[in-house]
Amino acid sequence: MKKPAPRNAFYAQSGGVTAVINASACGLIEAARKHRKHIGCVYAGRHGIIGALTEDLIDVSAVDTATIRALRHTPGGAFGSARYKLKGLDVNRAQYERLIEVFRAHDIGYFFYNGGNDSMDTAHKVSQIGEQLGLPITCIGVPKTVDNDLPITDCCPGFGSVAKYVAVSTREAALDVASMARTSTKVFVLEVMGRHAGWIAAAAGLAGNKPGQAPHVILFPEIAFDQPRFLDKVKTSVERNGYCVVVVSEGVQSSDGRFLAEAGSKDAFGHAQLGGVGPLIAQMVKDALGYKFHWAVADYLQRAARHIASKVDVEQAYAVGKAAVEFAVAGKNAVMPTIVRKSDRPYRWVIGEAPLQAVANAEKKVPRHYITEDGFGITAACRRYLSPLIAGEDYPPYASGLPAYVELKGKAVRKRLRTIFEL
Amino acid sequence: MKKPAPRNAFYAQSGGVTAVINASACGLIEAARKHRKHIGCVYAGRHGIIGALTEDLIDVSAVDTATIRALRHTPGGAFGSARYKLKGLDVNRAQYERLIEVFRAHDIGYFFYNGGNDSMDTAHKVSQIGEQLGLPITCIGVPKTVDNDLPITDCCPGFGSVAKYVAVSTREAALDVASMARTSTKVFVLEVMGRHAGWIAAAAGLAGNKPGQAPHVILFPEIAFDQPRFLDKVKTSVERNGYCVVVVSEGVQSSDGRFLAEAGSKDAFGHAQLGGVGPLIAQMVKDALGYKFHWAVADYLQRAARHIASKVDVEQAYAVGKAAVEFAVAGKNAVMPTIVRKSDRPYRWVIGEAPLQAVANAEKKVPRHYITEDGFGITAACRRYLSPLIAGEDYPPYASGLPAYVELKGKAVRKRLRTIFEL
Repeated sequence: MKKPAPRNAFYAQSGGVTAVINASACGLIEAARKHRKHIGCVYAGRHGIIGALTEDLIDVSAVDTATIRALRHTPGGAFGSARYKLKGLDVNRAQYERLIEVFRAHDIGYFFYNGGNDSMDTAHKVSQIGEQLGLPITCIGVPKTVDNDLPITDCCPGFGSVAKYVAVSTREAALDVASMARTSTKVFVLEVMGRHAGWIAAAAGLAGNKPGQAPHVILFPEIAFDQPRFLDKVKTSVERNGYCVVVVSEGVQSSDGRFLAEAGSKDAFGHAQLGGVGPLIAQMVKDALGYKFHWAVADYLQRAARHIASKVDVEQAYAVGKAAVEFAVAGKNAVMPTIVRKSDRPYRWVIGEAPLQAVANAEKKVPRHYITEDGFGITAACRRYLSPLIAGEDYPPYASGLPAYVELKGKAVRKRLRTIFEL
Repeated sequence: MKKPAPRNAFYAQSGGVTAVINASACGLIEAARKHRKHIGCVYAGRHGIIGALTEDLIDVSAVDTATIRALRHTPGGAFGSARYKLKGLDVNRAQYERLIEVFRAHDIGYFFYNGGNDSMDTAHKVSQIGEQLGLPITCIGVPKTVDNDLPITDCCPGFGSVAKYVAVSTREAALDVASMARTSTKVFVLEVMGRHAGWIAAAAGLAGNKPGQAPHVILFPEIAFDQPRFLDKVKTSVERNGYCVVVVSEGVQSSDGRFLAEAGSKDAFGHAQLGGVGPLIAQMVKDALGYKFHWAVADYLQRAARHIASKVDVEQAYAVGKAAVEFAVAGKNAVMPTIVRKSDRPYRWVIGEAPLQAVANAEKKVPRHYITEDGFGITAACRRYLSPLIAGEDYPPYASGLPAYVELKGKAVRKRLRTIFEL
């Protein structure tokens, strides 16, 4: 009996990129190369799922092993990512049919989708439609999000590194402010990412571990902003410590659920684009209390900061990429590898799995017991959860004082379809 | 014949702190401990010169060697800094007389002042007044400024590390933007420090070294901002590369010499407090060209980022601290150690010296031939100058995923004066 021929795989990066999403790509590609009996070529979508819809595929099989290995230490999305959400099956069936058409044309039997909540939803839908259209596709989600808001998995690859960046930066900036406070800056505000979940803001709490140490105030999206209580907390901190470090999540909301700062525009997923709550909070302090202030908005710097990536995060990002391939060749479908925590101290974790359906579109916020009673800090339980995720350094190689990140010159796969798909 | 008894030394940090100002303190203190024949105790001013005026001195001699050694890898100002400029001798002679009174009370014969332009001016004045009041004080300046704007010295300790931070961050953020540009962010704006001199903005130029690589636009304080030409450059970059990374100095000015963004408040030296030109530029691009944007303001994060310090910078910061002591014991006065470049490649440097008078209140801007003809980039000559300054990594030790920075619990020196000085 003839064995079934290997089929090709399609890999795509989706949504906001991270310092370690390429480490997942690296894990996945290296694993695929060890399973040639099942997986033929790996094709990556140029700019994510758009690459599939427009038949714009990069032949990863043609990339040398050193370049693939270097993906492990290169931030950003090496193949290009996309904020492009496929609509519901009932609304735009044509998108899914096009995907299947492209997959069929290139003999793609495996779909690996590296992203967050929305992407897991898409991967799940692709697995359903493939079935319906008579082209069974093995669909495996690869978790990625700096927001750390996917359910079931203990944490999300990408989060540990941004958490480390934010904790380190907060500790460093706090030393600066403490030096200056006598005659100059008394309040420093750092704005961090986290649209609905305050995990990144919480991570700043790791910067200090003794009373009086920064950050003195954390503003979470999970806790309605209370201006008088906030200002009172800042005043007390300045009076007691000489200065005050505030870390504010971009997603902090008023009690009526509106974002404090809203740029007004929305992204492709219908999310409001945020930014600017840092200066807003700083000015509020200045107006009410008169303190001299400085503020920083880390923005992309935080999620691209591969130079200060968490070793644990890099290892987990690599591991979920590798596990995705192992799941696929083991015949699993419509699942996502997860991180399962076995113990806090020493930190031990293994790879688990979750059905895509259970992950899709659900959001894990910071639980109330991880936030101190006054709403401005993190508890010991939160610290126990977060601490292992920033452990260890995984420095990239340097040349001439700069990290030697790799640039992927991907060879395009020859188009086989005559049709053009309008996005 | 009896040898002269050793006299005590006073050390103070001044102005905005850096990632390596404590490395200078470390070099100075370790050197002083090797010259006990000349230098008795080292006293540090708590919060800089204010510590001298208020007789608030920290006895550094009582601090153990491991803590002093750890200063080398700890950012911020371990003894506290101050933005407090002594007025002219004619305007406020009382301040200088008070300094001499305190120095006399504590048998202080050496004054080491670690700061920028303004501080070199103060150190120079103290050397003059000491003479006049019959208490000769050896005054040595120790250069420090992230702005890199001191004259005579080839570069300033503190600059190399912020330069490295900015170059690394620009390279990383550019990879992020490049991944997102197809469907999302097309323009990324990073605001960096540099009130009058664009050295830090220039350093971002090291991030890319091939045509098309980020940053695509640098806005220098040295080049009058020309909105139509700027917008045209951004548009061309997006059309050609798919995205555009803009690095803007906080001090960028319009052709009439006004800062584009001015917070309106002024610091103790009369400098306008800047911040917010990043979002302003980003919004300008959005309004004119409609591109989706992100912006970051690194603020204190850039100058506190000891985790990504330049090895060369750390070594130079340590060396100028050490040299200050060696100058003093060699009988030099009213001078500042400088960095003298002997060759670019391989980079070789030695310690030189400059009279304080020549350094005081002068500013070194980025020369025109370091900026490309169109005013938006750096030339090969600039690259040759900057590149060695960010060379090498000098990682701090870590514990539990965070840099193990030292906190100095300085023992206060017992006050000897009954008088209280009002600042």
